Amino acid sequence: MNAEIIAVGSELLTPERLDTNSLYLTAELNKLGVEVVAKAVIGDDRDRLAAAVRAAMSRSEILILSGGLGPTEDDVTRDAVAQALDRKLVFQEEIAAWLTERFAKARRKMAEINKRQAFLVEGAGMLSNDRGTAPGQWVEESGAVAMLLPGPPHELKSMFERHCIPRLARMVPKQVIRTLFLRVTGMGESDLDELIAPVYKKYTNPACTILAAHGDLQIHLRARCATEAQADALLAEVGGPIEQLLGDRVYSRNGDSLEVVVGNLLRENHATVAVAESATGGMLGERFTSVPGSSDYFAGGFITYTNAMKAELLGVDPQLLAQHGAVSRETAEAMAVGARRRTNATCALSITGAAGPDSGGENVPVGMMWVGWADAAGAMAISRQFLGDRQRIRTFTVQMALDVLRRRMLGRK
Amino acid sequence: MNAEIIAVGSELLTPERLDTNSLYLTAELNKLGVEVVAKAVIGDDRDRLAAAVRAAMSRSEILILSGGLGPTEDDVTRDAVAQALDRKLVFQEEIAAWLTERFAKARRKMAEINKRQAFLVEGAGMLSNDRGTAPGQWVEESGAVAMLLPGPPHELKSMFERHCIPRLARMVPKQVIRTLFLRVTGMGESDLDELIAPVYKKYTNPACTILAAHGDLQIHLRARCATEAQADALLAEVGGPIEQLLGDRVYSRNGDSLEVVVGNLLRENHATVAVAESATGGMLGERFTSVPGSSDYFAGGFITYTNAMKAELLGVDPQLLAQHGAVSRETAEAMAVGARRRTNATCALSITGAAGPDSGGENVPVGMMWVGWADAAGAMAISRQFLGDRQRIRTFTVQMALDVLRRRMLGRK
Repeated sequence: MNAEIIAVGSELLTPERLDTNSLYLTAELNKLGVEVVAKAVIGDDRDRLAAAVRAAMSRSEILILSGGLGPTEDDVTRDAVAQALDRKLVFQEEIAAWLTERFAKARRKMAEINKRQAFLVEGAGMLSNDRGTAPGQWVEESGAVAMLLPGPPHELKSMFERHCIPRLARMVPKQVIRTLFLRVTGMGESDLDELIAPVYKKYTNPACTILAAHGDLQIHLRARCATEAQADALLAEVGGPIEQLLGDRVYSRNGDSLEVVVGNLLRENHATVAVAESATGGMLGERFTSVPGSSDYFAGGFITYTNAMKAELLGVDPQLLAQHGAVSRETAEAMAVGARRRTNATCALSITGAAGPDSGGENVPVGMMWVGWADAAGAMAISRQFLGDRQRIRTFTVQMALDVLRRRMLGRK
Repeated sequence: MNAEIIAVGSELLTPERLDTNSLYLTAELNKLGVEVVAKAVIGDDRDRLAAAVRAAMSRSEILILSGGLGPTEDDVTRDAVAQALDRKLVFQEEIAAWLTERFAKARRKMAEINKRQAFLVEGAGMLSNDRGTAPGQWVEESGAVAMLLPGPPHELKSMFERHCIPRLARMVPKQVIRTLFLRVTGMGESDLDELIAPVYKKYTNPACTILAAHGDLQIHLRARCATEAQADALLAEVGGPIEQLLGDRVYSRNGDSLEVVVGNLLRENHATVAVAESATGGMLGERFTSVPGSSDYFAGGFITYTNAMKAELLGVDPQLLAQHGAVSRETAEAMAVGARRRTNATCALSITGAAGPDSGGENVPVGMMWVGWADAAGAMAISRQFLGDRQRIRTFTVQMALDVLRRRMLGRK
């Protein structure tokens, strides 16, 4: 079965924006055994979009549209699909009632314009949106199906997962696809590939994909077979040697993110952690607390961006700061020790460094970052020199800090 | 004049790859006054590509194809364009000679297969490639032109710059594009549209686009005219009333983000700010410190995720916490007062709330968020009820906190 994807929105035709929803959608479709044969981006132009929808539905069994379901005049997807299929738009009282209630919950009056979102293409099924106000639609026409999904990625993903994947799974011919999903940190993408390519290159099934983002690496091994047992055997045959090569750089085998993995380790050990952040300014705390229930183990934190705050809030000795500088092993260790003492946490992480674009008066190269650690046994710190812009350097350092905690909790290194 | 862009290559239909050549091409076309009205990605499938080429050339004056010009069987662009226009491919001795010479220079023998690159669509002009072996092509057909460019970005850019821009500049009517870019916060997308649609709807030039992300709204007004003065006059005519309607909800006219705008306000006022974050766990500090030079005004912060830390690090009275709860006006104010006092900052922001998925034991609905403020004159706090998942609620609250600071610095509300 073939699929096409159309992203709708004039903003996606500017020099600044790309449609990235299609990457997620392609990955999910591929898992179902469906191939994406064409993608398009169409501006907020009803006629042009209607023509594209008509053409796509005439040659492919599956069409996914993202965006253009908002309440404004330039949201043309509903109208365009109706036009393409020569159907009417029908006002749905239940959707209007749901919208009104949703606004009431937020203590806001619903603008009249939002009623536009209560129209469905005649004969379409409504796909509920649990993250926003734009309902999706599922429209079938002579053997083909079009899915109208909202543009914001978190809305689209939730809707696609809850409504579309189960329905597609029933449509698509049975094939077993099993995936081995490893998450790895502490090495670069090309180093990872160099290490494991000699293993996975020998196979076309399972297919191996390596994804890298923000210092986090993912390895996907995907086996397609007639039976589950065959697929699992293939994954074991290829995944086993890969896991052996990677050792403790693999931090997750179930998709859990690094902050979830370290959170679970802390919880299992009845431990709490505090943070002291200079260059990352709260980013490490934000990662910890992005996990629901993190109050079980996240004690608290300090954002000590200046030397004065490092001294006042964490008790770092001003003489030590003057002697070694803010970006140093000594300061990183003292920050972690101070954060732990002032919160009574079991352990503490600290970050200090030069995130750029300049060194902020410190005599270190841009990208030089220290991560400190303190627990009952004492303190230590390690440094790395990162490349890239401010945001990349900060993100990679936070990843490194979480990995320091993981390794400490596992008693490694 | 309108343009379409087609990227050719099955690798661009995988979950890992995006066509980014189109961003460069769009920027260059826009500079010439040409709008991109559709983009597509087509796999290595001759018939499908031929159909897409035929459709694009029938509705747009300019079609740019990237990729699929290599020497292998799966490089189908030449054949597809010939098929679409019902023309032959013609072998060009000069191109073959140039290829042979190019290989000889690199001391390599040309594979027989490379001769495929010496074929031009009948009637096409050759576009020389100074970075690779794939020559480009310029093909005209009844008022439209198709440009066949190589896929590797550095080859494509060089070829487009040297050959296509000069030719397009002669084809395209002289035109100037000027943009007014407003950034707005503190209202929803649909409320914004309802407010300003009566103004912009009266015009097709300038074109108005509204973008929403993470509680931040952008309005783009783009005027196309023969002269700069005409474009600026149009922008003033439409932008003036829009700005008047929005009033102080407009925070930026030059593209600056909210954290940059409030940072500049703090710097101009020789003020410093501290933060105390509960539910957002460092996200507000992270926004402030994402701006290089923020140490000028960002004093520091506290991540007080638990009641104990609110009391210990910020000096919030435990009785007050017990009486009003952690998610309350009183706690938000006390957190801001405490953060300000303990850092000696000019002012402080605090955030406390229930970011979900549950209320964390507090007797408030999920999404109920308080932002507190303290300065020399005293303390205040405001609340809002946000919808959505944990990450959305946290992001919107941080945006709201930055806007509280902006309004306070401007002496408003």
